[in-house]
Amino acid sequence: MLMKTLPVKQIQPGRRWIGRLPHGADLLDALTEICQRRDIRLGRIEAIGAVQRARMSFYDQAKQKYVEHSWAQPMEILLLIGNVSMKDGRPFVHAHLTLADARGRAFGGHLAQGTIVFACEFILEELRGARLTRQPDVETGLSLWSAARPARPRKPK
Amino acid sequence: MLMKTLPVKQIQPGRRWIGRLPHGADLLDALTEICQRRDIRLGRIEAIGAVQRARMSFYDQAKQKYVEHSWAQPMEILLLIGNVSMKDGRPFVHAHLTLADARGRAFGGHLAQGTIVFACEFILEELRGARLTRQPDVETGLSLWSAARPARPRKPK
Amino acid sequence: MLMKTLPVKQIQPGRRWIGRLPHGADLLDALTEICQRRDIRLGRIEAIGAVQRARMSFYDQAKQKYVEHSWAQPMEILLLIGNVSMKDGRPFVHAHLTLADARGRAFGGHLAQGTIVFACEFILEELRGARLTRQPDVETGLSLWSAARPARPRKPK
Repeated sequence: MLMKTLPVKQIQPGRRWIGRLPHGADLLDALTEICQRRDIRLGRIEAIGAVQRARMSFYDQAKQKYVEHSWAQPMEILLLIGNVSMKDGRPFVHAHLTLADARGRAFGGHLAQGTIVFACEFILEELRGARLTRQPDVETGLSLWSAARPARPRKPK
Repeated sequence: MLMKTLPVKQIQPGRRWIGRLPHGADLLDALTEICQRRDIRLGRIEAIGAVQRARMSFYDQAKQKYVEHSWAQPMEILLLIGNVSMKDGRPFVHAHLTLADARGRAFGGHLAQGTIVFACEFILEELRGARLTRQPDVETGLSLWSAARPARPRKPK
Repeated sequence: MLMKTLPVKQIQPGRRWIGRLPHGADLLDALTEICQRRDIRLGRIEAIGAVQRARMSFYDQAKQKYVEHSWAQPMEILLLIGNVSMKDGRPFVHAHLTLADARGRAFGGHLAQGTIVFACEFILEELRGARLTRQPDVETGLSLWSAARPARPRKPK
């Protein structure tokens, strides 16, 4: 029942790119720039590679705020995965990062600015046919996709 | 040589959806319901977000049974990735989950019921052109895709 | 500015496969063989499953060399994600692996030979419309995709 009020949109594949990011770039800024330049309003991103250092965040669900943690060391990018949607009228990248240190231990979190690329290979896919916009969500304190249309009132039985 | 008896099926893209799951939903149940409602017989799912608590399992390869572990705390979903195929005549979701705690340490396993969504954004892709059905596999003790047709006997030289 | 000299190629979807790998296979060799047999010159791979043991590597950015680490125990494959491009005239798989042990702790690195499949379900997608070739990169010491055409000299202002 709950499902009906949440956005689940059928979409079609759009344009696609494969490439790599510049050594020394800020990972989040670089991905955001690529999406904004190409006007990607809805999409997905995946990437592997390595970072020189990382800054990620964890969402404290009780306090409803992000807590940041930094890793001042080289790490492998086991995976970056993210989506692109609209926020404040512009393409916005929401990505989660999984890293590994020299001993192979894995760490991760919400990608924040301050994560610096060593090498990074990505695939970016545009999705078409729907529009998803991030708006404040009271229940979680996050910016989430809201249903484009409000749920229809149910008829009383 | 072994490869010939295993299913590797060429497929085509089908329908696609992007959306988010309800706060408080059981992650595995919600994904399964979405796939069964849409009659997705073959597909892939990916998701990021956060959970309120998690229940995952590890397959003990020697004893051939799943061992469950629970995490009674909020965690980031670094990634959920899974596939959809047929089992017992219905769409079945097989997904693996990677999580991070407040300190950024990563954990993961086979997604089990009892993992509760805080927020979750997913992409679901239907795959067409083949049918894969999970059946008991003696070698591993798992339910795996079996070849649709048995390997042809080779002519003796 | 830096972006202009790096390869970011627009591509189209090609052929796709879903399947599983043989129990006991070397994970990297099996994926490479699948790509080479099908002449996949550009693509992406994802997989979940479990390994009997693993061998991964971490790239020491200062010394510019890979350091290997082995895990002589069964682990869940939380995710394998990789790309396929050309190296030395043949399809080459670059994949990163995220694993979990019996306690759910996650580990990962660059997939190396010596990782043995217990069970593994994969999706392989060919990408068309561009050619990416790995060549030595002086800055990182890695084999990276180079721009197909050198950057045009800028006119002096």
